[in-house]
Amino acid sequence: MLSPAVIIQKKRDGKPLTREEVHGFIHGMSTGEVTDYQATAFCMATYFQGMSQDETMALTEAMLASGERLDLSSIRGAKVDKHSTGGVGDKVSLILAPLAAACGVKVPMMAGRGLGHSGGTLDKLEAIPGFNVNLTKAAFERALSDVGCAIIGQTAQIAPADKKLYALRDVTATVECIPLIVGSILSKKLAEGTEALVMDVKVGTGAFMKTGDQARKLATALSQVARKMKLPFRALITDMNQPLGYSAGNAIEVQECIEVLRNQTVSNLSSADLKELTVQLCAEMLELTKTVRSLAEGRKLALARLSDGSAWHAFEKMVATQGGDVEFIRNPRKLPRAPTEVTWVAKRRGFVTKMNTEAIGRILVDLGGGRKKATDVIDPGVGMIFHKKLGAKVLPGDPLVTVYAPSPEMMRDKPRFSELEQRFQDAVEITGARKPVPKLIHRRI
Amino acid sequence: MLSPAVIIQKKRDGKPLTREEVHGFIHGMSTGEVTDYQATAFCMATYFQGMSQDETMALTEAMLASGERLDLSSIRGAKVDKHSTGGVGDKVSLILAPLAAACGVKVPMMAGRGLGHSGGTLDKLEAIPGFNVNLTKAAFERALSDVGCAIIGQTAQIAPADKKLYALRDVTATVECIPLIVGSILSKKLAEGTEALVMDVKVGTGAFMKTGDQARKLATALSQVARKMKLPFRALITDMNQPLGYSAGNAIEVQECIEVLRNQTVSNLSSADLKELTVQLCAEMLELTKTVRSLAEGRKLALARLSDGSAWHAFEKMVATQGGDVEFIRNPRKLPRAPTEVTWVAKRRGFVTKMNTEAIGRILVDLGGGRKKATDVIDPGVGMIFHKKLGAKVLPGDPLVTVYAPSPEMMRDKPRFSELEQRFQDAVEITGARKPVPKLIHRRI
Repeated sequence: MLSPAVIIQKKRDGKPLTREEVHGFIHGMSTGEVTDYQATAFCMATYFQGMSQDETMALTEAMLASGERLDLSSIRGAKVDKHSTGGVGDKVSLILAPLAAACGVKVPMMAGRGLGHSGGTLDKLEAIPGFNVNLTKAAFERALSDVGCAIIGQTAQIAPADKKLYALRDVTATVECIPLIVGSILSKKLAEGTEALVMDVKVGTGAFMKTGDQARKLATALSQVARKMKLPFRALITDMNQPLGYSAGNAIEVQECIEVLRNQTVSNLSSADLKELTVQLCAEMLELTKTVRSLAEGRKLALARLSDGSAWHAFEKMVATQGGDVEFIRNPRKLPRAPTEVTWVAKRRGFVTKMNTEAIGRILVDLGGGRKKATDVIDPGVGMIFHKKLGAKVLPGDPLVTVYAPSPEMMRDKPRFSELEQRFQDAVEITGARKPVPKLIHRRI
Repeated sequence: MLSPAVIIQKKRDGKPLTREEVHGFIHGMSTGEVTDYQATAFCMATYFQGMSQDETMALTEAMLASGERLDLSSIRGAKVDKHSTGGVGDKVSLILAPLAAACGVKVPMMAGRGLGHSGGTLDKLEAIPGFNVNLTKAAFERALSDVGCAIIGQTAQIAPADKKLYALRDVTATVECIPLIVGSILSKKLAEGTEALVMDVKVGTGAFMKTGDQARKLATALSQVARKMKLPFRALITDMNQPLGYSAGNAIEVQECIEVLRNQTVSNLSSADLKELTVQLCAEMLELTKTVRSLAEGRKLALARLSDGSAWHAFEKMVATQGGDVEFIRNPRKLPRAPTEVTWVAKRRGFVTKMNTEAIGRILVDLGGGRKKATDVIDPGVGMIFHKKLGAKVLPGDPLVTVYAPSPEMMRDKPRFSELEQRFQDAVEITGARKPVPKLIHRRI
């Protein structure tokens, strides 16, 4: 193989790398032949020069080959997963995995943790006392067979080269690079053993992709490489210009999911967008695996499984199987809730026309509901309830958000409420003229 | 200070870095706050985004501040150094340092070793048995006072941040980046205590800068930053489309320098370009330090000091002061010479119109006369004598080059002569039509 420096130089100069060169480079990261400081120079060169489909596929294959690939062929039924690029209040997976299982597919979901302004599915599930996201391979496969779904963390054996590269990218300003994102997502999803993938590519003020153009590029790149790798694939580009559903936080998002799964509604709070997106993603999963003949049929089946309680039943079973105490989900008021409740109200009359959703997510992080660095400990009881979403009419004094914050002692090393409220008020634009609310689903790719 | 990742991101996005940010980043490399893998990502981002003059100056200052700066103010006379970007057969420093000293200035020269296709002054001097390039600071200053010049290696105390960064750049394809080159050169030259600097920026097939445009950009950037840092500065852009002088190798280049210093000529071989360039660079050093009133006066003085033997005398004194055995320079035939002599001849009639000088340098390296990696050991007796240079008329059978190669046993792990000759023949273009020979001095900046 060429020396690592020569491979970096080729990428730097925009020359195409062969499959062998990409494989050699990624493999060299495991053997030590490629150092960390060469890996980051390569990532930065890739940031500027991009990668062709062939190069991205080779990257995906190489990261996949760095670890083990689960073989779920002994489990009956179509295996299909959903992955989201993340945002604020994106709790879809908690409802979708049991819902899709109730519709007859198997959902082998390896999910992530929250970092930065966006939340993580594993953290949300861990708000349920006892819930274990670290199943053995055997237990994961058993849960898939018995329940139809399981949500676990990525094991150390899954795409270790990706794990290493991602940690390096995180501290070298090379996260926002489409081919590297594509390789990272697809290698992990192929390794977990899924046979089809539905991507929820978020776009907007709370997403990593802030513009429709970026989101479309990512979704297209994912689609092209997935197709080359024979992975049935569908992407929805969906709105993240406001939090999804009415809540953000960990325990509180579990509570909102339970309400959707049990067909309960809470006065004045709306989970309509959350439910609609979940049903649509479920329909995509069912159609992609040919479990149904059309999206319409898929939606119908999903809605039926929500209303007949079988999705809720699958969720209960998943929680029990993964060691969670079902008492807490049957009585979600028992879930952790931070002791201090503060409500911030509108200062003026008008319409909510814009939410800087990333800024809102960062307030949650500052309260202890998320992580700034991977080693931070999350307070599951911290959360926010959004009383007004985009398009809502507000009058001065109307509650905008209710915040569940730690005790005063715990708040001592955190920003003051006055500062946090100011940041929230700055993040929410209220103007006299109504503006159109972005569509929930922007595009299907 | 901003986190290293945020500084990398700013550079990646083309946003200007403040002086404090650049200093903080480089200082962080010493404290460990900035990791090697962040440093290389930063270098690659700089490769693509460049640096402003202010940023480059901050980089230079920060690398200078990472180590000690020699104070030569107690030594009488103007301190002026020359630095070359390197090439094949570039032995100017060996003649120029004693010549300039003989003209009345002090030359505190910290030189480098050969790497890749280009040779290094220290390696050449070490072909003289006993020559010591590792003087203590006190011995360096004493030699400067007594002889007027000294040529030593860069000590560990000189710009350690540059040393570290350069080693990282070398294996991450970020050497060819003008602001990083400028920072590297100027920080070291300022640290060695020189008060003025003449740069020889090589351009052509044997130089790092292959085009006039690149060379001009580098010379201009060096000039601008040197001026900002109050370092009197002059750059000549000079030709490296063929080896300089008639020889390349280590001992053999010392021999050629001795001939120039002693006003000897060798039949059929020409050191005219070497002598002319050395005299011009010396004149620049004298004019830059106001030792003479004009370049013409400088040239006249330099030529006089060559012909009256005082440059030779200074060289002899420098060698003796630095521990070299003067017997070897008085009788250069005693210098090491590799045992196998092979001459490659012209295959056709015509004119030498092009020499791929880098390729020629690499043949020398493959024979053991240079290094592929920093730990390689050089054979000082390996060398080449060029019988024909650009513009020469040749007939079939005319000698083109004589190669001094290791013994057959030592050649066992090296390429075969037939392969090396083929590479040499490929590197030398002989065509029916004469082409203009590039000027020795392309430009003065």
